[in-house]
Amino acid sequence: MSITVVGSVAFDAITTPFGSVEKALGGAATYFSVAASYFTPVRIVGVVGEDFGNEEMKIFEGRDIDVSGIEKVDGAKTFFWRGEYGYDLNVAHTKDTQLNVFADFRPKLGDLHRDPDILFLANIDPDLQYDVLQQAGRPKLVALDTMNYWIESKKPSLEKLMRSIDLMLINEAEVRQFSGEANLIKGAKAILSYGLDTLVVKRGEYGVLMFHDDKVFAVPAYPLENVFDPTGAGDTFAGGFLGYLASRKHMTEGELRRAIIFGSVVASYNVEAFSLDKLGKISRPEIEARYRAFRTLTHFDDFELEA
Amino acid sequence: MSITVVGSVAFDAITTPFGSVEKALGGAATYFSVAASYFTPVRIVGVVGEDFGNEEMKIFEGRDIDVSGIEKVDGAKTFFWRGEYGYDLNVAHTKDTQLNVFADFRPKLGDLHRDPDILFLANIDPDLQYDVLQQAGRPKLVALDTMNYWIESKKPSLEKLMRSIDLMLINEAEVRQFSGEANLIKGAKAILSYGLDTLVVKRGEYGVLMFHDDKVFAVPAYPLENVFDPTGAGDTFAGGFLGYLASRKHMTEGELRRAIIFGSVVASYNVEAFSLDKLGKISRPEIEARYRAFRTLTHFDDFELEA
Repeated sequence: MSITVVGSVAFDAITTPFGSVEKALGGAATYFSVAASYFTPVRIVGVVGEDFGNEEMKIFEGRDIDVSGIEKVDGAKTFFWRGEYGYDLNVAHTKDTQLNVFADFRPKLGDLHRDPDILFLANIDPDLQYDVLQQAGRPKLVALDTMNYWIESKKPSLEKLMRSIDLMLINEAEVRQFSGEANLIKGAKAILSYGLDTLVVKRGEYGVLMFHDDKVFAVPAYPLENVFDPTGAGDTFAGGFLGYLASRKHMTEGELRRAIIFGSVVASYNVEAFSLDKLGKISRPEIEARYRAFRTLTHFDDFELEA
Repeated sequence: MSITVVGSVAFDAITTPFGSVEKALGGAATYFSVAASYFTPVRIVGVVGEDFGNEEMKIFEGRDIDVSGIEKVDGAKTFFWRGEYGYDLNVAHTKDTQLNVFADFRPKLGDLHRDPDILFLANIDPDLQYDVLQQAGRPKLVALDTMNYWIESKKPSLEKLMRSIDLMLINEAEVRQFSGEANLIKGAKAILSYGLDTLVVKRGEYGVLMFHDDKVFAVPAYPLENVFDPTGAGDTFAGGFLGYLASRKHMTEGELRRAIIFGSVVASYNVEAFSLDKLGKISRPEIEARYRAFRTLTHFDDFELEA
């Protein structure tokens, strides 16, 4: 199945307790498309400035990623984010955001990007996401990401959008922020009530909860001794998750669960190095090996209570 | 197999956002023994004051719990703890602690309590725990719980103890506190290096990690819409975990994992009501049903990457 992602392509400057990088490749659509390309062809819609050259475009080369939807604006600069993490790698502290070309980004879907089987609306202004949705035709599955900033500043726009899509990815704190519920399960149900089929709650180092068809699926994150940079983990997860789903014939509960594991696998690799340094270099055997490691991590048998 | 627990029997006053109780039954050994008794006979060693009467002792009746090791001190009062929780139920705020009879508690193991197959040293002064261990003979498995207070005030005593036992239960923040490692996996390995076979890391609403034989097992907590009172969740978990193990012939990796699930099951029931109001009233079919619900919550199949 085909998959189109609309979102940011960016430069990031990142400082963690383990080092720092200046002007590293980043952006939700970048992480998403590289992760998804391990499973399925991807079409990316975004915008960059003239500082995003052939060197930067190399991340998309040699993969099944169509970049014809990346618009390049002359005389302007690429979206830039500067962030810092302390020892609690679950919390990013934004130090600087320069929208640059992103300030006037009005995504236009070409023929190639319309009517995808799966459409991923990466985190941008929900009004723009809604506009993309209007252009997209009839995808089988529309998935949405957002952030605390939009929940606070544009909740009605977000609510309108949520009534028109199938699946939402959101982090734990945002569930509580959106719903006003301290209890995560109640908060998730409040969000599902907008008409979503599936809700995926990202919990950072604690893994993922998926709500689908009155069932909950929970998976821990892969235990890692070295987490260097959590930037892009959520978008990488979304890429593995939706990329795997796009590679399958049916979206059954079983496939959704496997997709959650593949998303967790690629996200676990991603945080082991800065930027896309590791995500860009993993192999199919590595992905399969860590999927099996997730089975070993979580498997337990049924019981017989009689001794 | 037999199991002996040494620890506190107490009165708690608890306030949560969902209500409050005054002088409710509590204490680590109380929660532990009731939880373990669903799986195996338990012998409890503790101390109470004269305010702990027949009414209070009823919690142990009708179960396979031997209470001959509960010493009653005339003219003195039972250990008392007052705590509050905000909406973040992972964090208890201690408002008052009255040691009372606990101030002079020097546990003495009788013939019945010595040489158990499993000995659980619930959270008390590590010097006392060491003294109990010297009296205990040769248990097959000695399991230890502790708390941040002892890590800060009596780390050398705790370290001596850790070199003499098999299994330790500890919460996530205490792993970081004890080891000085921000990364949980590195911190766990540092603790295992004292010679422990098994380390169980409790993560509250995020579940449990078990480290055993170079393998990690991770299980999420059961998703609950109504968590009323997390008091005793850790000791209840320990009771289900060790109680199940005591009911089995062998302590294989598979049995340890099933034990983690049974611990999680009883802990999930315990937090659904104040004090032991729910824990004291669950049934074997309820325990089995929630074990199976944990399977549904966490199960995923192996993959076939070919479409």
